[in-house]
Amino acid sequence: MIRTPSDPLFRRVYLLGTGLIGGSLALDLKARNLAGAVLGGDREPGNAARAVELGILDEVAPPSEKVLSSCGLVVLAVPVLAMEELLRKGFPDGTLVTDVGSVKKPLVEAHREASGSGRSYRYVPGHPIAGDERSGPDAARTGLFNGARVILTPEGGDDPDIDAVTRMWEAVGARVQRMTPELHDEVFAWVSHLPHMAAFALVEAVLRRDPEWVSLSGGGLRDYTRIAASSPRMWSDIALSNRDSLLGAIEGLERSLKGIRSSLEEGDRDKLERIFTGVAEVRRRL
Amino acid sequence: MIRTPSDPLFRRVYLLGTGLIGGSLALDLKARNLAGAVLGGDREPGNAARAVELGILDEVAPPSEKVLSSCGLVVLAVPVLAMEELLRKGFPDGTLVTDVGSVKKPLVEAHREASGSGRSYRYVPGHPIAGDERSGPDAARTGLFNGARVILTPEGGDDPDIDAVTRMWEAVGARVQRMTPELHDEVFAWVSHLPHMAAFALVEAVLRRDPEWVSLSGGGLRDYTRIAASSPRMWSDIALSNRDSLLGAIEGLERSLKGIRSSLEEGDRDKLERIFTGVAEVRRRL
Repeated sequence: MIRTPSDPLFRRVYLLGTGLIGGSLALDLKARNLAGAVLGGDREPGNAARAVELGILDEVAPPSEKVLSSCGLVVLAVPVLAMEELLRKGFPDGTLVTDVGSVKKPLVEAHREASGSGRSYRYVPGHPIAGDERSGPDAARTGLFNGARVILTPEGGDDPDIDAVTRMWEAVGARVQRMTPELHDEVFAWVSHLPHMAAFALVEAVLRRDPEWVSLSGGGLRDYTRIAASSPRMWSDIALSNRDSLLGAIEGLERSLKGIRSSLEEGDRDKLERIFTGVAEVRRRL
Repeated sequence: MIRTPSDPLFRRVYLLGTGLIGGSLALDLKARNLAGAVLGGDREPGNAARAVELGILDEVAPPSEKVLSSCGLVVLAVPVLAMEELLRKGFPDGTLVTDVGSVKKPLVEAHREASGSGRSYRYVPGHPIAGDERSGPDAARTGLFNGARVILTPEGGDDPDIDAVTRMWEAVGARVQRMTPELHDEVFAWVSHLPHMAAFALVEAVLRRDPEWVSLSGGGLRDYTRIAASSPRMWSDIALSNRDSLLGAIEGLERSLKGIRSSLEEGDRDKLERIFTGVAEVRRRL
């Protein structure tokens, strides 16, 4: 499909949450004429105003039935517990809703519940694997999704809604991949949520030992403090939303740590070197 | 002191270990005319040959009494357990020896033992906080120490040997700081050795869960796989050489992880957010 300037993919998009991910998506949607206009809001009124200044939003508008109904796509880019609440409460009949949340199962369930109680909006769950420790509208930038992977976890087979959301992500440079919500949440518990918990835990441990030592962080700690600088609200939401899988992953880490600790207690150099070698080789495969 | 090309800080330097740290130091010593010539070797003969090709070594030479006695400075840049062995065995009387090891207490003790049994070489223990996960002569590069911190842990007060080693590091762009070996090993157990152990443990845990998942590492795991790609031999040596402090640090991490785990089990969002917030703020202080 070739679009002309008068023919955007979505005439109007409603964006809730104007932080790093939502803001960057809006900037790309406008820069590439995928959206004629982006309306929206943020739970922090100051962020919404800043988003207008930065060209992320064309207009701050309340998420009223009338406004939402006028938009071809609603993008949720708020912390996941807030998303879950919104999806459960529902959207005007027929609205197409997608999201950028790091956890998918509770959101799919919230949509299913809403459908069960008669709210028949359309929902395509999504998760762009992009971003860094920064947050807020000022962190947003064009091109963030270029080369990134986006996981979609829709129920059922192909349909025009999934196509539309897929086309949107591909048009901003992402590669789209499909997965069940269950597999998504289990995989990302290990490869994303666990590393963040480990970084929070490690930096907290050093702070408890001696807060002054953090400044000597050249030798390894620096990457952890960067990861641990991620939004606390966003990460407490993610952790709680993916509690069961994440608890399993934390136990896995505890088990591995214990293996290193006991090799160390036993002074077993071969065993230590064997563990480290198995792990160090992984990098070459990436 | 202004040196002319005919007046290097050391006429000849002997380098044992031509990897990232030792190799980079040799390149800088020659580029800045701090050493007239760098002789040396590597426990891997292939590395020594490669070091000559790369201009790290002017000549491969065995660490014989005669060769070592002809050098104004001996730099040890091998894994720390090998250093410990060398320092215990001793060097020709009067030789000035320094090192780049990540652990200091066992090395200082090895020197003290050697002195006790009559080997009176001079030793200035050092630890440059520089480098990354790469290793071997090909990873060596000029400028690695520019802006880096170097910790020296000599016994006693100022003396010409400490001055010479300090001048060498300052001349390659480093800031030199002094510390007791005991404090050094405790600090670096937490800010460097623990983060490496945590990265090895975390990547191992993910590999045990599903090795395929590592390739989905956009969301946090990537930094860990990079840290965990560090030399297995070097890190098993460091871990064993600093066992007591490191075991204490691992226990500290286990305690912090348990705090996050129990907040998660209890669904205590406020507590989780409080932990994450305290940690996230650290980054701003760096």
